[in-house]
Amino acid sequence: MTPDVFIYDTTLRDGSQREGISYSVEDKLKLAQQLDAFGVHYIEGGWPGSNPKDAAFFERVKSLGLKHAKIAAFGSTLRKNTEPQDDTNLQTLLAAGTPVITLFGKSWDLQVTDVLVTTLEENLAMIQKSVAFMKAHGREVVYDAEHFFDGYRANPGYALATLRAAAEAGADVLVLCDTNGGTLPWEIEDAIRAVRAELSTPIGIHTHEDSGCAVANALAAVRAGAVHVQGTINGYGERVGNANLCSIIPDLQLRMGKSVLPPANLARLTELSRYVAEVANLPPEKHLPYVGSSAFAHKGGVHAAAMLRNPASYQIIDPALVGNQRRTVISELSGRGNLLERSQKLGLDCSGEQAGEMLNQIKELEAQGFSFESAEGSVDVMMHRLQPTYEPPFELIDFVVMVEHRQGRGILTDAMVKVRVGEQVIHTAAEGMGPVSALDTALRKALREVYPDLDPVRLDDYKVRILDSETGTDAVVRVLIDTKDGARRWSTVGASPNIIEASWRAMSDSLEYALLNLNKN
Amino acid sequence: MTPDVFIYDTTLRDGSQREGISYSVEDKLKLAQQLDAFGVHYIEGGWPGSNPKDAAFFERVKSLGLKHAKIAAFGSTLRKNTEPQDDTNLQTLLAAGTPVITLFGKSWDLQVTDVLVTTLEENLAMIQKSVAFMKAHGREVVYDAEHFFDGYRANPGYALATLRAAAEAGADVLVLCDTNGGTLPWEIEDAIRAVRAELSTPIGIHTHEDSGCAVANALAAVRAGAVHVQGTINGYGERVGNANLCSIIPDLQLRMGKSVLPPANLARLTELSRYVAEVANLPPEKHLPYVGSSAFAHKGGVHAAAMLRNPASYQIIDPALVGNQRRTVISELSGRGNLLERSQKLGLDCSGEQAGEMLNQIKELEAQGFSFESAEGSVDVMMHRLQPTYEPPFELIDFVVMVEHRQGRGILTDAMVKVRVGEQVIHTAAEGMGPVSALDTALRKALREVYPDLDPVRLDDYKVRILDSETGTDAVVRVLIDTKDGARRWSTVGASPNIIEASWRAMSDSLEYALLNLNKN
Repeated sequence: MTPDVFIYDTTLRDGSQREGISYSVEDKLKLAQQLDAFGVHYIEGGWPGSNPKDAAFFERVKSLGLKHAKIAAFGSTLRKNTEPQDDTNLQTLLAAGTPVITLFGKSWDLQVTDVLVTTLEENLAMIQKSVAFMKAHGREVVYDAEHFFDGYRANPGYALATLRAAAEAGADVLVLCDTNGGTLPWEIEDAIRAVRAELSTPIGIHTHEDSGCAVANALAAVRAGAVHVQGTINGYGERVGNANLCSIIPDLQLRMGKSVLPPANLARLTELSRYVAEVANLPPEKHLPYVGSSAFAHKGGVHAAAMLRNPASYQIIDPALVGNQRRTVISELSGRGNLLERSQKLGLDCSGEQAGEMLNQIKELEAQGFSFESAEGSVDVMMHRLQPTYEPPFELIDFVVMVEHRQGRGILTDAMVKVRVGEQVIHTAAEGMGPVSALDTALRKALREVYPDLDPVRLDDYKVRILDSETGTDAVVRVLIDTKDGARRWSTVGASPNIIEASWRAMSDSLEYALLNLNKN
Repeated sequence: MTPDVFIYDTTLRDGSQREGISYSVEDKLKLAQQLDAFGVHYIEGGWPGSNPKDAAFFERVKSLGLKHAKIAAFGSTLRKNTEPQDDTNLQTLLAAGTPVITLFGKSWDLQVTDVLVTTLEENLAMIQKSVAFMKAHGREVVYDAEHFFDGYRANPGYALATLRAAAEAGADVLVLCDTNGGTLPWEIEDAIRAVRAELSTPIGIHTHEDSGCAVANALAAVRAGAVHVQGTINGYGERVGNANLCSIIPDLQLRMGKSVLPPANLARLTELSRYVAEVANLPPEKHLPYVGSSAFAHKGGVHAAAMLRNPASYQIIDPALVGNQRRTVISELSGRGNLLERSQKLGLDCSGEQAGEMLNQIKELEAQGFSFESAEGSVDVMMHRLQPTYEPPFELIDFVVMVEHRQGRGILTDAMVKVRVGEQVIHTAAEGMGPVSALDTALRKALREVYPDLDPVRLDDYKVRILDSETGTDAVVRVLIDTKDGARRWSTVGASPNIIEASWRAMSDSLEYALLNLNKN
């Protein structure tokens, strides 16, 4: 199947320009495999001339056996007043051995004179020679027209002349780049229609998020006839970021009716988004369209009720299409319907009296400062506890946490825990970086004696919020804990004027949840 | 000046639907003051019928003396087969006493029949009667046409009829809502042009981010003639979020040439964005267009070099226009000038060597997780400590904090403190609601023996933030403390992987600051 629009992923190159991202060669190879399995058509692997890591990537990616995606190497047109065979940059690009070469050149007269410091004519020659050289070596050439829209605004004739130089030299696609991210959708459309009236080479689009329109700009380009879209997974990129392919692909396919990827691949989008976040070592952004964990979460009472009557009321697509899922956020505002839905998922009975009891407990705890809307782990544990036959996997007897500052010794932190598991009483102690960490370590140490399966369960995120902070150190503290066990992840909550008690409650819910679900996979 | 486009802020209502946000009445009042000072034209305060907190807000906001913004109360049109005077929802809305009432009604036939479960005619009557009732009570009426674009797609005639019902009843503005967030910019434009051909009432726009186009959709609406834009600061909102006013306002003003706010107000946008994040207790999102700390950060080598030649190369605007700043990502130094200015205020010498020493200390502490931006108290104390003749008013020897959970006794918390004041060693203990409160109480008890003047000094606010929360309970904790002494108020900071140590540092800075300034009034 030939897609209506080709996806050119630059997560590995432009995406790595995001502040805080630094991929190893291994990371890039893992990402390339996932991107290929997902089905993007091109993977821009890096800029071989710019650093040794990228050169190593191009060497090693050849033996990965990618199935669908073509690998592209990125670099600039040749230096002014140079011939291709003497230009080290072009030679390095060639040496990367990729089927696709992406060359970027200047479209904006101001950039030619101020940054390249050369003549407008010489810039045209640089573009023409570079593209022709790569074509003569049998490569597919993607020509990235940097700053195209700024250039087109400043001097449309010259901007078009740069594209013509690339087209006549044989470029396979002309990618118009909104490098600064300041162009608006209708400006993109107008410019692309004007280019298409002059040139028959296929057109691509590369946008940035600086005015908040990166996705809309890419869509507007496709509407005007672009057939190649560049972007990154999760919108990672320099400054504010690149166009987010996790929004663009479902928009093109599900809202604009374009054929981009097989539907089965689209259903892996959420997984891919989280995988990339994981490798980038960034927390998955909850509020990304389509793939964020909040994308299909419903909090408002009115919305939650209407969703039960008709799911189309407040969701744009069936979340399964992109591999995501609907969530009903449980809070004091939720009704019985929300609870029922959740308990059915767990295979528990939570109707009638139990639902009433549970809503009362939630209300009472929320009045104390708990918040269940992002703590489904605690909600699930509470549902289990309400079952008449439930036996908790452990029970707290005592704990002591001690933080000491002793002159000359610095800070010392220890915790003691005594818990009952069935008939057994376990009494142990541990130290930690702080009081919560010491308590967590001691509790795990105690439970591991009976439940060795807890080993892979890891605390993944720990958040504290002071409620009504104006009451100073007596304020209620809410603690939210995220826990991970391989692929599963759950959140639990605790609240108290005492941070240790609040943490204890979230922590013990989390481990109780883990023990309830250990044998369920 | 009449703006080209009116900004209708719904941070307090729709924005609070974001998962994890839960504002107190105090929070909402503080936010309303900042939004007003910034210059938004309307502030939607909440849904008075839905919960007691919103009702309290409307009562108390009246005495705030807002200067520019009009306060709006939000609610639905009346119930089916009811008259306005018998409808509790409309009565509650009226009782909120706001100059503006925002009524939302159904535009989508499917929603009328499936969710309201009434006839299409009855829905028109509900809209007409509700709007007319509020107009008869002298209120400005904003009519929110929920699901307008979905409705227009399904049944354009009926969708237009609902708007006509509101317009003929006297609505001041008809706001077309893309409630599910699935509409694309050109669809928005086409629909608005069609509506404007039929009705002369001013048109507004309300968009959501579910397809990644919320900002572009709002801009497209203005291009098609909308003069009222609804959104939230930072794009907070249900599911993925609402249209982000922090992108829309600069786009309208700086890229589309619309007059929205005085330029001096626009320069406070970044500050406002971070203030709202602070009150929402969410970390400021670094990658927001215009206002994020990465929005004008340059990492790529090529970009950084080109920026030196010509700043327009890789930034869309001068960041000062929105109160943000350019950063080159390497390391950051605060200028000596800032320190000099502050030390002169204190009557201290902080030039030359001392300034260098101080900058080093700040850099080192910030790398550990401190943040001095909002902790001038700690900065002042640090300046005093660098004076060669400085003698600290007290010195810590030891402390111990103990939290115990004992079966049958609940939670017990005690702290012991040993400090030196001059030649005297004071050793005492206290209990508290939690470990930090116990330590604070013990320290004050010790110091009061020597410094009875500390009595009126009160801890006023205590905030905790987990940095790099992904490292779980070993993450660095930053504590910010606000302290009050009659009219004076100061902030201090501490950071450590141990929350008790972080709190101790902020707390002892705070009391040291108090003792330095006690005789200065």
